[in-house]
Amino acid sequence: MSVASTSSSTSPGTVAVVGTGVIGRSWVRVFARAGFSTRVFDPDPGQVSGAVAWARTSAAEDVHLGLYTFTEAQAEERRITRCETLEEALDGAAYVQESGPEAIAAKQAIYRVLDAAAAPDVVLGSSTSANDMTVIAKGLPGAARCIVAHPVNPPHVIPLVEVLAGASTHPDVTASTLALLRRAGMAPVVLDRFAPGFVLNRLQAAVMREAVSLVGTGVASPEVVDIVMRDGLGLRWALMGPLGTAHANADGGAGSYFRMYGDAYRAIWKDLDHAPDFSESVIDAIAEGTTAMYGEGAVAALAAWRDRMVRRIMQLKDADPAPGADNTKQ
Amino acid sequence: MSVASTSSSTSPGTVAVVGTGVIGRSWVRVFARAGFSTRVFDPDPGQVSGAVAWARTSAAEDVHLGLYTFTEAQAEERRITRCETLEEALDGAAYVQESGPEAIAAKQAIYRVLDAAAAPDVVLGSSTSANDMTVIAKGLPGAARCIVAHPVNPPHVIPLVEVLAGASTHPDVTASTLALLRRAGMAPVVLDRFAPGFVLNRLQAAVMREAVSLVGTGVASPEVVDIVMRDGLGLRWALMGPLGTAHANADGGAGSYFRMYGDAYRAIWKDLDHAPDFSESVIDAIAEGTTAMYGEGAVAALAAWRDRMVRRIMQLKDADPAPGADNTKQ
Repeated sequence: MSVASTSSSTSPGTVAVVGTGVIGRSWVRVFARAGFSTRVFDPDPGQVSGAVAWARTSAAEDVHLGLYTFTEAQAEERRITRCETLEEALDGAAYVQESGPEAIAAKQAIYRVLDAAAAPDVVLGSSTSANDMTVIAKGLPGAARCIVAHPVNPPHVIPLVEVLAGASTHPDVTASTLALLRRAGMAPVVLDRFAPGFVLNRLQAAVMREAVSLVGTGVASPEVVDIVMRDGLGLRWALMGPLGTAHANADGGAGSYFRMYGDAYRAIWKDLDHAPDFSESVIDAIAEGTTAMYGEGAVAALAAWRDRMVRRIMQLKDADPAPGADNTKQ
Repeated sequence: MSVASTSSSTSPGTVAVVGTGVIGRSWVRVFARAGFSTRVFDPDPGQVSGAVAWARTSAAEDVHLGLYTFTEAQAEERRITRCETLEEALDGAAYVQESGPEAIAAKQAIYRVLDAAAAPDVVLGSSTSANDMTVIAKGLPGAARCIVAHPVNPPHVIPLVEVLAGASTHPDVTASTLALLRRAGMAPVVLDRFAPGFVLNRLQAAVMREAVSLVGTGVASPEVVDIVMRDGLGLRWALMGPLGTAHANADGGAGSYFRMYGDAYRAIWKDLDHAPDFSESVIDAIAEGTTAMYGEGAVAALAAWRDRMVRRIMQLKDADPAPGADNTKQ
């Protein structure tokens, strides 16, 4: 799905979006688009205004792209309420999506305030990409209702959310968070334990480390590294992930594949660079390469293109799902 | 492009495809489809028959999918010649695409035979995914005309080719190989020096190592690891690669991005597992997961779906290329 459709008669509920940077503002769209009464707060009132203005512009772009009707965009906008205090944002909310600064001390401070201010049955979900809810919510009276709900940037385009309980999170909170995110049109997956970077950023970091190493050691230019991904590996990984790709690459599936190619992988693993040169000169070489490829100062247009194309790839996959696949399985 | 179009009046030349396993047979289609007179040899004559039959079926599937006309498929088939000896295959060929076994001793033996049998100006390209041409061609009189041309599986669907010279390869050979591969409808990129796995398999190995580690250490199930890639990272990497993704993620481009998130990457890099448990039990867990996701024995249908969808994603990118991008830049 590209833009969630909504029954106009029943509201799926009320949520509060707290923290309205690039991720938070995109969450505003996610919830309001799906029919939630969406209450928005940021300690910086200018951020709230900016986020609401961005949401209007972004919805208008969706109308322009034909993904959305003008009436739907208007209804979405009506569901957004700017709030001047946290208490006002929490009024009637069943769920809070927190998207504040990542530093662990800042997260702990935000959760102390949220836990003190929110009614006991309100779930407190965090967009954190780096922190463990066990640590964020440690010692809080309401630690059982705190959970990680880490989206992919931008969540209003990419529905995937990594959901991870802390040590004290109640199983019912995990279940209700999954249900609520699905009502919001998102596609949550459950992680089983914390590791720095969760799944998404660990896979990304593994690729980025090797990309930095390949450029730094002169194996290939930044342009060639990117072409190999976008015109090679990425075409398959947009469809199946690394394990599904392995499954499709041997007649007996992934088990045969890994028994056949295990030693080849081990040989490359031994050679991969664990601490690549990541100095200013390597960063400069990468930046020169990406600027040569994608142009100077064209980042906003590039991001808009990415969002448009991601939606089209998702539409292709919706229209023709993998054979034999249970795409909703976790 | 999905299927290369051909001027019917002029032939781009004659090539020999030597070795006709899964990769070699796909090369047969690449060259014959692009108009080359394509001479096919394998020490096992049954392999040649199988490859030619496969090429016919595969072309018929393209006709069925509407990618190709029946007349084009017939013309493609007429350009394929089964050869009973290597000498017959080399007759008139300007280029050899070798796709034999990967073991280095086998590659060296094949190249000794090829170098002795082929006229001096014939370029000898290898599909090797693992070996350095400096080692394969060491001591051969014709080392200057030997070069790596490593495709992505399957080359008749994915045009990317990693081209890498050996220490003795003449620069003109690199240039003429690039020109010939482009005439064949392929999209070659040049690597600057050898590293085990080149660029593609090193990036793949980096991801696979982390995927194996995430499953083995209980962070997430195989299904979740794959969903995070295919519905998250892979959607972006099919468009831009990791460095372009970084470029689009910060207003100042990749330089700003890496200066902003460098420490976050370093922190995850320190935590990545360099020698994950890759025992039978972890392989079994992965195989159970991929079978649950994609079904038992459905590998052929899954691979056909992958090929169809990869073509559609390539068509999307052809129809709406990245803004400000020079997509042909290396």
